Amino acid sequence: MRLALIQWAPGIGRLEHNAERMGDLAKKAALQGADAVVFPELSLVGYPPMDLLKEPGLQDACTKALGTLAASATIPLLVGAPSKVGSALYNAVFWCYRGEVREVGRKVLLPNYDVFDESRYFIPGEGCSTIEIAGQTVVLSICEDLWAQDADYNYPSDPVAEALALDHGKPRILLNLAASPYSIQGVVKRQKVLASVASRYGLPLLYVNQVGARADLIFDGGSSLISGVGETVVRCPSFLESMLLVEVVEGVVLQADVIPLHANTWVVSQAPSVLENKLPERSHPPVLGHRFDPVEVTQALCVGLRDYMDMTGGRGVVVGLSGGLDSAMVTCLAVMALGAENVTALLMPSEYSSDRSVRDSLELCKFHGITHHILPIGSAFGSIKETLLNQWGEAIRPLTEENIQPRLRALYLMAHSNQFGDMWLNSSNKSEAAVGYSTLYGDMGGGLSVVGDLYKTQLYALAHFWNEQGSWIPPSIVQAPPSAELRPDQLDTDSLPPYPVLDALLMDLIEGGLDQAGLYQAGHDPDLVSRVWSMVRRSEFKRFQMPPVLRVSSRSFGRGWRQSLV
Amino acid sequence: MRLALIQWAPGIGRLEHNAERMGDLAKKAALQGADAVVFPELSLVGYPPMDLLKEPGLQDACTKALGTLAASATIPLLVGAPSKVGSALYNAVFWCYRGEVREVGRKVLLPNYDVFDESRYFIPGEGCSTIEIAGQTVVLSICEDLWAQDADYNYPSDPVAEALALDHGKPRILLNLAASPYSIQGVVKRQKVLASVASRYGLPLLYVNQVGARADLIFDGGSSLISGVGETVVRCPSFLESMLLVEVVEGVVLQADVIPLHANTWVVSQAPSVLENKLPERSHPPVLGHRFDPVEVTQALCVGLRDYMDMTGGRGVVVGLSGGLDSAMVTCLAVMALGAENVTALLMPSEYSSDRSVRDSLELCKFHGITHHILPIGSAFGSIKETLLNQWGEAIRPLTEENIQPRLRALYLMAHSNQFGDMWLNSSNKSEAAVGYSTLYGDMGGGLSVVGDLYKTQLYALAHFWNEQGSWIPPSIVQAPPSAELRPDQLDTDSLPPYPVLDALLMDLIEGGLDQAGLYQAGHDPDLVSRVWSMVRRSEFKRFQMPPVLRVSSRSFGRGWRQSLV
Repeated sequence: MRLALIQWAPGIGRLEHNAERMGDLAKKAALQGADAVVFPELSLVGYPPMDLLKEPGLQDACTKALGTLAASATIPLLVGAPSKVGSALYNAVFWCYRGEVREVGRKVLLPNYDVFDESRYFIPGEGCSTIEIAGQTVVLSICEDLWAQDADYNYPSDPVAEALALDHGKPRILLNLAASPYSIQGVVKRQKVLASVASRYGLPLLYVNQVGARADLIFDGGSSLISGVGETVVRCPSFLESMLLVEVVEGVVLQADVIPLHANTWVVSQAPSVLENKLPERSHPPVLGHRFDPVEVTQALCVGLRDYMDMTGGRGVVVGLSGGLDSAMVTCLAVMALGAENVTALLMPSEYSSDRSVRDSLELCKFHGITHHILPIGSAFGSIKETLLNQWGEAIRPLTEENIQPRLRALYLMAHSNQFGDMWLNSSNKSEAAVGYSTLYGDMGGGLSVVGDLYKTQLYALAHFWNEQGSWIPPSIVQAPPSAELRPDQLDTDSLPPYPVLDALLMDLIEGGLDQAGLYQAGHDPDLVSRVWSMVRRSEFKRFQMPPVLRVSSRSFGRGWRQSLV
Repeated sequence: MRLALIQWAPGIGRLEHNAERMGDLAKKAALQGADAVVFPELSLVGYPPMDLLKEPGLQDACTKALGTLAASATIPLLVGAPSKVGSALYNAVFWCYRGEVREVGRKVLLPNYDVFDESRYFIPGEGCSTIEIAGQTVVLSICEDLWAQDADYNYPSDPVAEALALDHGKPRILLNLAASPYSIQGVVKRQKVLASVASRYGLPLLYVNQVGARADLIFDGGSSLISGVGETVVRCPSFLESMLLVEVVEGVVLQADVIPLHANTWVVSQAPSVLENKLPERSHPPVLGHRFDPVEVTQALCVGLRDYMDMTGGRGVVVGLSGGLDSAMVTCLAVMALGAENVTALLMPSEYSSDRSVRDSLELCKFHGITHHILPIGSAFGSIKETLLNQWGEAIRPLTEENIQPRLRALYLMAHSNQFGDMWLNSSNKSEAAVGYSTLYGDMGGGLSVVGDLYKTQLYALAHFWNEQGSWIPPSIVQAPPSAELRPDQLDTDSLPPYPVLDALLMDLIEGGLDQAGLYQAGHDPDLVSRVWSMVRRSEFKRFQMPPVLRVSSRSFGRGWRQSLV
């Protein structure tokens, strides 16, 4: 049997488009001699479909689209799609072939942690199914079904083990259809789980995952063939549409190849050395004891940004360049992902902006060939202060005066956006978002937060890596001590601990899930723990109104972070 | 047996405070001769606790707090609290009495629709339990367990029916511990479900629900005794802390009384006629075919606002008074909930503001005795436009110019907030939030959206009702045609259909959950359907950054509305 696994990027709610594309991909697979084609979880509706699954007309639309696919299918297709039976909705797999549409599998384990809410929509299937594909016995599972013994949630059953316990007397292979998002730690954990499951049963495992980004979630693919001893025989390149062709006879893999399906559109000419497509096996110095692959993270963010623009129909973006590291990096990522011609920088200096900030910002624009506008905020800032003073009859407090500046800059950025149709990219990092060191409706605004799931120390590591590959960011931007420049000689360290200390604590709090007692035990300074804990809690209301954040960690702010506001 | 049901307002995550308060309430119940006391679902940790349930130290803290409660309990207490068994977490009920803490019930049906995510945290119990309280056999259920046959989700089992099917040979009563949020339609549906369950089994049903608001969710209580023929014998007043004392012997209710636990703090002197505590049985003319009780809705919003301020530690609020209906109503609600002394209005007229708007706004302030500031935006608006023109070298587009104004007003509101510590109240209504007829970082900002879950037509109905009771809103504000006043002679109807038409469509789309085909079938104009559908979809990114909205409908924007941004 020759099986084609398709690592591709379905659109959310774009059923007709998705079906058409799958039909085309199936034809390509047939040309490669495939006996059957497998697409990732819920490929028909895209992932995550969210409340789209509650639309009354969805099932009819799915039935129609699956029918169209089946009508033209010259080889069997396995297509992930929702299945409504009475009032119950399943996360299912359909067999589409020569006009026949048949449900052949249902997801048993429904993830309900982090960003996942599958119990909101689906009810669990009774067990994994075993199907025959071109004479080969295949145990079919959907994403989480494979994770029974390894997920963050303790499941009462292991549907793959149960399906295997039924002895079919034939050599078998394992097949998993996934929609598993990227995270820096997650890709390593996932590959371990795949190896662990395959070796547990001594069976080859075929894994197919989607690529592309869907708002906050980025999918890296990594579709793989794992041998029965747990070795990754072949793995599709991360983030790129690919076909994995596997020849299996009697449960034995004879051959496996990857065929690219798509040009690597996000590698721009200026940056081949940063974005060169390397597999994430490369080792890099750890950042704060965590795995951190700068190539992979850069790719993830570029895919996230590119696809968000693609999906929302925009082309241009605008960034407010402050002279600091974060906005410079967001600008570089925009150049990598969208090309310099689609990036505009706004420089909005005030009386507190240093000469260095302005000079470095201009140098960055010049180097990358980015259009920029200079919109000094002084005149409007003066008018605003005068209006307030006249009415209030009292001095404007320092905090009030500081916050007016980023809000005025936000107003200019949105005016630019309204005038020219560019989307404003947010430049917040995770460290400042966590402790609320940021201004709501000011620097916390924007259509998409590009680096909001990276701590400041991770951004430094990424910047150093980029600059090793080429002249990406003027060195004096990287070297300058972080400052909001909202009052004379202000430094982030006036209000915050040094970033390495802060970030280590925040990682244990956010990704580690430790509470205050746990943070003490982990060796963090008790005074700092209680101070940072309170800053994180008190800034929940700010994050509530934050733009979507491209997720690259195991726990990002947004849908996976649900805290009470009171 | 004399049972005391306590309708009260636990704080989220305030375990020590909650335990102490429950101890005090139990003493009050004992003084009334109660044999046992029952508190609502998860009273120990508050509802909804959200990711607090994932904190590693939570279970130890619960065990400790329950132990303290039990140590001082002179009569048995039934306390809702999470229960961790190995790695499994249950939504449970504990029996606390004379130092003993014993788990006596687990929630079986976990709601995962709308704002509920219980499968994210809990695993289901195996069945409802039957316990003995002072010689009386009680079938114990938790909230959703009662809704097996009536919820929006189809459950495979009915735990109450199953528990009753086990014949204990004794007369029984049903007891349900709930944390069921208010909605205009929901209170009626809930009372029907209670009646239906009680009459289905011919058994008396005791229902205890929490009160108070927790960010977006408002709890009305409505704790009740329902007879075995489905009649509501006694119902605690909505929104007020109360004790329901019930005397039951051999499954027969002998007596039932409500004892108030708390002063009705949200009835302010100016507004007795609006906020007088009436039961929601009163009938009013329907708004768009839906039940709409203006007294109850007013109470709900006042509780929501008051508790949000209480919980976030703030006292004062600031509202941007435009001269339109929405901001006038938010101002009135703030006066009702917090008192005029805690409300400040900002008037921020522009060259496009009508004389009427300014005059009416001043009259509103004067009538209610509200402090106001006048901050004209003209001077700063001029400076901003000049800066943009100088740099852009092209005319500022009308949309750009329109949006600058609400953003500048937002900047003034936040400056006021920073200067004086008042929280800015958002004035958006549901109609404009739905179609995106609003400016991000402008009028969409604020710490809390007070009327964001009411359609414009509902706001009119509410305003007319208030003005029948007293002089709440200057009539010319109510009569003025809605306008954003961002350009000369602008009217909402320039861009939107008349509100009655728009709202009827939106209600079917949002609360009704209809898709485009369904909306056509419901008789809405096909062109309007596709136009409004597209406006709703395209403004998803704006609502993503909206403040929390006080929820009074069965489907509000916020946690219960989860749509893909792409």
